[in-house]
Amino acid sequence: MSLAFTVEASDGAARLGRLETAHGTVKTPAFMPVGTQAAVKGLTVDTVRASGAQVVLGNTYHLMLRPGAERIARLGGLHRFMNWPGPILTDSGGFQVMSLARLRTVADDGVVFRAHTDGTRHHLTPAGAVEIQHALGSDVTMVLDECTPYPASEAEAAASMRRSMRWAALSKAAFVPRPGHGIFGIVQGGVFPGLRAESAAALVEIGFDGYAVGGLAVGEGQARMLAVLDGLGGALPAERPRYLMGVGTPDDIVEAVRRGIDLFDCVLPTRSGRTARAYTSAGTLNMRNARHAEDPAPLDAACACPTCAGYSRAYLHHLFRCGEMLGPILLSQHNLFFYQRLMADLRAAIAAGRLADFRTA
Amino acid sequence: MSLAFTVEASDGAARLGRLETAHGTVKTPAFMPVGTQAAVKGLTVDTVRASGAQVVLGNTYHLMLRPGAERIARLGGLHRFMNWPGPILTDSGGFQVMSLARLRTVADDGVVFRAHTDGTRHHLTPAGAVEIQHALGSDVTMVLDECTPYPASEAEAAASMRRSMRWAALSKAAFVPRPGHGIFGIVQGGVFPGLRAESAAALVEIGFDGYAVGGLAVGEGQARMLAVLDGLGGALPAERPRYLMGVGTPDDIVEAVRRGIDLFDCVLPTRSGRTARAYTSAGTLNMRNARHAEDPAPLDAACACPTCAGYSRAYLHHLFRCGEMLGPILLSQHNLFFYQRLMADLRAAIAAGRLADFRTA
Repeated sequence: MSLAFTVEASDGAARLGRLETAHGTVKTPAFMPVGTQAAVKGLTVDTVRASGAQVVLGNTYHLMLRPGAERIARLGGLHRFMNWPGPILTDSGGFQVMSLARLRTVADDGVVFRAHTDGTRHHLTPAGAVEIQHALGSDVTMVLDECTPYPASEAEAAASMRRSMRWAALSKAAFVPRPGHGIFGIVQGGVFPGLRAESAAALVEIGFDGYAVGGLAVGEGQARMLAVLDGLGGALPAERPRYLMGVGTPDDIVEAVRRGIDLFDCVLPTRSGRTARAYTSAGTLNMRNARHAEDPAPLDAACACPTCAGYSRAYLHHLFRCGEMLGPILLSQHNLFFYQRLMADLRAAIAAGRLADFRTA
Repeated sequence: MSLAFTVEASDGAARLGRLETAHGTVKTPAFMPVGTQAAVKGLTVDTVRASGAQVVLGNTYHLMLRPGAERIARLGGLHRFMNWPGPILTDSGGFQVMSLARLRTVADDGVVFRAHTDGTRHHLTPAGAVEIQHALGSDVTMVLDECTPYPASEAEAAASMRRSMRWAALSKAAFVPRPGHGIFGIVQGGVFPGLRAESAAALVEIGFDGYAVGGLAVGEGQARMLAVLDGLGGALPAERPRYLMGVGTPDDIVEAVRRGIDLFDCVLPTRSGRTARAYTSAGTLNMRNARHAEDPAPLDAACACPTCAGYSRAYLHHLFRCGEMLGPILLSQHNLFFYQRLMADLRAAIAAGRLADFRTA
């Protein structure tokens, strides 16, 4: 395999691992901040790195539109462009085409769409999505898939999943292996255990450096999401990393780690940071709430982030009330530190064999 | 005097000085970033400090409305509230009342207005403005003044200036001297040399820790602004700091330093940073301009700021094109570093007696 992955310890289904990429090692379980447009919203890479983040995610859909993959390639690749020297995973654009683009037409050879930014017409194919990710210089490339809408009937979910499996084979065929670079397949199949098992088997048959679980966290609820993970059971190879795409809340992450997931990404820390929602070891806080107006305490007394070291809840409340952009900056910073601390705590719990006792707020 | 000020060297009319406050020393000439609402827009205090800024400005008008001076006092004062341990100068609110508030009524005892934020009615008096600044914990308090509109007739400018001089006396009377804290008077009088001289004499008669020049940079143009400074000549005491309020561009600052000004404040570095305008040693750049789209160079090869160390013009262009908030953050950071580097270069030029050769781009 092009990406070395070592499971160093396990605790139940949960694993402590190391993923070796061309741009460095990722200790798993790991959370990837989302750098949609080559930027983690509101945070410099120095802050992202200081939070403990080891790997960031870029979005093929956004970057192919602005500034364009070829332009990023001419500028030295995505790592240099966004000044992030560590590993980068890029998604294939499939999810964003479904959620953002207009006038989509999905066919067996790919998807034709008009960009949400300027209406220009694009044709994204499985091979094309991989080529774009090569141009970006991704350490971890994702296959093009069709994100099955929720809810969908079993017949719809089956047709969509089988198309994604054909695209997965075409994506793998287009991938150029290099040391420290790899490609992940994406399990689809909605909330139907039989389809998920069929999808996993199809991907294993093709053979990937890692296996993602897609099409979840789209409205089905945590119980159904975890049921899909439970249903997958041993269908995903133990020696390869597993990535639950677009998940999630701290509790979602803990429960998925218990079920053997190694990698996560989600916009929640930064999106919540922009909308005044703070994650703390005592639960979430809405910083717009007037009860914080005179509170001299930090967001979270147990947190060592620069926001908690220097600023009170009263000050953050004031910034959000005034619409000062420093509010989203400081709160996104805290939330990302919170998520990274959660992952470090999860790794420590697995190493100590104490994950059963692990609790979030 | 409550604020020690030492002139360590001079070069023509320009001076190299040290202003000692309760929260530290300010080497002059100095530029004060504007923290209107207890935040320098888009920048953490760590970044503000790293830029070389020694003192920041807070706005009495904004802070009395949100979150309120008494609340800031209960939370330990403005230094602790905004996590800035260095010196703070606060303006008196006079300028913002004129530019932002609604239904203003100016009378001899002060100004009645309705807040632009929520329409609440307030009565700001000279003594009240000083008491608010005491509650904030300001190192340097400014007298309440009426910012004379531009253009104004000589009669209008005279009446406005004389009212401001009466307010200056009332402000001084309300000021409670403490070591390391001081109060500055503000010279008004529009573009009329006789009125400016009368105003300066009136303030010197009252006696202040420093003397500000107000009512400029309001549309009169650089030539008239510098003519006012030239006209003041020796009217301001040489042993006290001089502060040109709300100024300005790099060139404005250099020309005012040549005329003996020691302190400056302006929103330009951060406002320009939010609107894609970059200050560089080769002039200003509009980062939205398409010519930057593939430029791998930093904003300014001569700049040592974190933005120039890590990011290309192409990347900054991309961020502004996408509306990513990291664009304003990185560009505000650069612009503030640029301004602080300008001030350090000016101080070095004065110390070396080479200010006559000093050139900006």
